[in-house]
Amino acid sequence: MPGPAASLPTAAVRWDGRRLHVLDQTLLPGREQTLELAGAADTAEAIARLAVRGAPNIGIAAAYGLAMEVDRTAGDGALAAAAALLRGARPTAVNLAWAVDRVLAAALAAPLAERRIAARAEAEAIHAGEDAASAAIALQGADLLGDARRILTHCNAGALACGGTGSALAIVIELAQRDEISVLACETRPLLQGARLTIWELRGAGIPHELLVDGAAAGLMRRGEVDAVIVGCDRVAANGDVANKVGTYAHALAARAAGIPFVVAGPTSTIDMAIASGDEILIEERSAEEVRHAGGALLTAADTPCRNPAFDVTPAELVTALVTERGIASPPTRASIAALLAGAGGSE
Amino acid sequence: MPGPAASLPTAAVRWDGRRLHVLDQTLLPGREQTLELAGAADTAEAIARLAVRGAPNIGIAAAYGLAMEVDRTAGDGALAAAAALLRGARPTAVNLAWAVDRVLAAALAAPLAERRIAARAEAEAIHAGEDAASAAIALQGADLLGDARRILTHCNAGALACGGTGSALAIVIELAQRDEISVLACETRPLLQGARLTIWELRGAGIPHELLVDGAAAGLMRRGEVDAVIVGCDRVAANGDVANKVGTYAHALAARAAGIPFVVAGPTSTIDMAIASGDEILIEERSAEEVRHAGGALLTAADTPCRNPAFDVTPAELVTALVTERGIASPPTRASIAALLAGAGGSE
Repeated sequence: MPGPAASLPTAAVRWDGRRLHVLDQTLLPGREQTLELAGAADTAEAIARLAVRGAPNIGIAAAYGLAMEVDRTAGDGALAAAAALLRGARPTAVNLAWAVDRVLAAALAAPLAERRIAARAEAEAIHAGEDAASAAIALQGADLLGDARRILTHCNAGALACGGTGSALAIVIELAQRDEISVLACETRPLLQGARLTIWELRGAGIPHELLVDGAAAGLMRRGEVDAVIVGCDRVAANGDVANKVGTYAHALAARAAGIPFVVAGPTSTIDMAIASGDEILIEERSAEEVRHAGGALLTAADTPCRNPAFDVTPAELVTALVTERGIASPPTRASIAALLAGAGGSE
Repeated sequence: MPGPAASLPTAAVRWDGRRLHVLDQTLLPGREQTLELAGAADTAEAIARLAVRGAPNIGIAAAYGLAMEVDRTAGDGALAAAAALLRGARPTAVNLAWAVDRVLAAALAAPLAERRIAARAEAEAIHAGEDAASAAIALQGADLLGDARRILTHCNAGALACGGTGSALAIVIELAQRDEISVLACETRPLLQGARLTIWELRGAGIPHELLVDGAAAGLMRRGEVDAVIVGCDRVAANGDVANKVGTYAHALAARAAGIPFVVAGPTSTIDMAIASGDEILIEERSAEEVRHAGGALLTAADTPCRNPAFDVTPAELVTALVTERGIASPPTRASIAALLAGAGGSE
């Protein structure tokens, strides 16, 4: 059973063998409050309101959510309904459906009396797999980025979002163990995962950092103040197009214009070979309230109409490298990603 | 003497012939409170803390600030000191030095007893000139953009920032009088001039609008949801590079990638022929407190280190057209801008 990440005071997702404990990320950094989840419904609700977030951790939480549901009722219909509820909690991360389907298949393949054990074992395997993926991503990404010292990142792709110490942030932490680096963290409006979560993790890890508004990133890249951009991903299409937190695409354009690497990190569970290109990825549109407010404060007229896409798509041609636990696709293309998934290694 | 803009409940900058009344924009949209300014010191302070803002309006306010100072003391040394104080209030907008220098020169050219009248007349001429520039920019910009219906803008370049109904927003208002349009307004972190000021002006003008976080703009352009981007400018270099509110450059990159026009609007007072390129423009770095907070709420740890450049530079090659009161430089180049300033018309 995987334990909490060593570098965190409280693990984002902790399984005690019976219940799932998730750190309520909507309250960070002001308050560290853990929620105890007991089944599919409360887990789906925690995912939908971003108490637990980050594509890999959404998958891990949903896996346990379904496994816990088997305690209550192990019949085919009930399990299918619980799986559908969890799958529908958020639309963009593919890890969610991937993890739910793995646990569902494992449960249904077992005799009724053994479904509980089979589902839990599968959820624990998913969790352990994501922890191991984080460690492998960290080493490969740090090797790839070698001499980059000034790293810019967006949103949060650390231990709060993924197994282990994260994806993008796992690479940053590994780089920091090898040399002196500094991190520019974009605040990531509207929900401020950068200002709230990445800053909290960087502070905990003792890595020098500065916070900036999202709009400041491109100008600093143009002024030569950034060596590389590293971000996580919520879904990668078969052709290498990347859906990630809204704001990512502009950073990719600016990195290309500045001639610096734009690196995407994530476990292979984030790759969706059933989606040909980013144009087919469903982009979640969230509530206008998120745009009208920040940190609880109302920023504009209370009835101002808003657009609030939670993600955007960065086309594969702007991605220098996709770093996964199975290797690096550099650049990511249909061929390099397929080779990586087939175990033939990336095209690096 | 120019009166307040007709479309505004309270004018951003109003001169009563004796004192300058500015709407305190730091309090909008929650409160409409007017400050009465009486000289150079309080005007410089109002400019520095963004109570009055927008490159043209900074120039207008500073012109009156110096003119009022002549009431107190008309000696050469005292006037030079007051001019220096006003020029130093903010570093990026060239209109500030341009307006102060015009009023100073007018005062010094007059006999001591007539300096008061000469300075006031020059400040009023600057104000009237910026009002007229806004009207000319509106008509030319709307002609240029013809069939654009879905406009994206950043920060605030309306009546709160410029003479008349603004620069970028003057074009939007003119387009709205010709056809049905809709505006996507970027909130413009850190100080939220989009969420607070542009939304307030669009609402007042009855133009359909939606607010979005700055990071969402590029993705919506890529999805084909924007016909044109229109922004103002704080300083234009001789080669056409544009300094504008931080976040602008990323929108220009995204507009180019999406194949839509990226139009910059501003009076010729914003053009600085003494600056060869955008690399020479001094970018104001403001307080970390602005990044750590939004709408009064603390968003991150109270001592988080921050970067806070207030502007960025968009290279001329990304600018489809520079719309001024004297014509359009399309694209802006050293030659097309020089021709425009020489009265030979732009290169349109």
